[in-house]
Amino acid sequence: MQEFLVKNLGYIAGFFTTIAFLPQVLKVWRTKSTKDISIWMFLIFTTGVFLWLIYGLMIINYSLIIANTITLILSISILIAKILFK
Amino acid sequence: MQEFLVKNLGYIAGFFTTIAFLPQVLKVWRTKSTKDISIWMFLIFTTGVFLWLIYGLMIINYSLIIANTITLILSISILIAKILFK
Repeated sequence: MQEFLVKNLGYIAGFFTTIAFLPQVLKVWRTKSTKDISIWMFLIFTTGVFLWLIYGLMIINYSLIIANTITLILSISILIAKILFK
Repeated sequence: MQEFLVKNLGYIAGFFTTIAFLPQVLKVWRTKSTKDISIWMFLIFTTGVFLWLIYGLMIINYSLIIANTITLILSISILIAKILFK
């Protein structure tokens, strides 16, 4: 039961930190305004998420692979918006 | 050697996704402008990072505890800036 709770807390936490980027993606593509967004944040973050994905693939951990694939797509969407809309 | 590389890749990835939030913190506190930042992103993200920290404490994983404590501080700083500077 304790182990079940602990395991699921990891999944819930991962769900939150993954899905969090969706409202930011929707906002930048709707408003086409990215002035207050730090390009360095999303350059460094996207690099980190890509490395997490490689790490997930190397240790064959499906939670890491799925969560980081989704986050990578969302993070790259924000990065593209930042580059297109100054 | 392979194991050494794999283990360190996790640390490097964690370093990138943690430190990424620092330029965004500096930007919002310097410009006092947060119009383009999604409050939902940082509300959901901060909740997720808090849950990751609890998870790290439950399974006693120091990488998770250290990385998520730093990210939590940075994420809350952005959230406070977003609330203060509309």
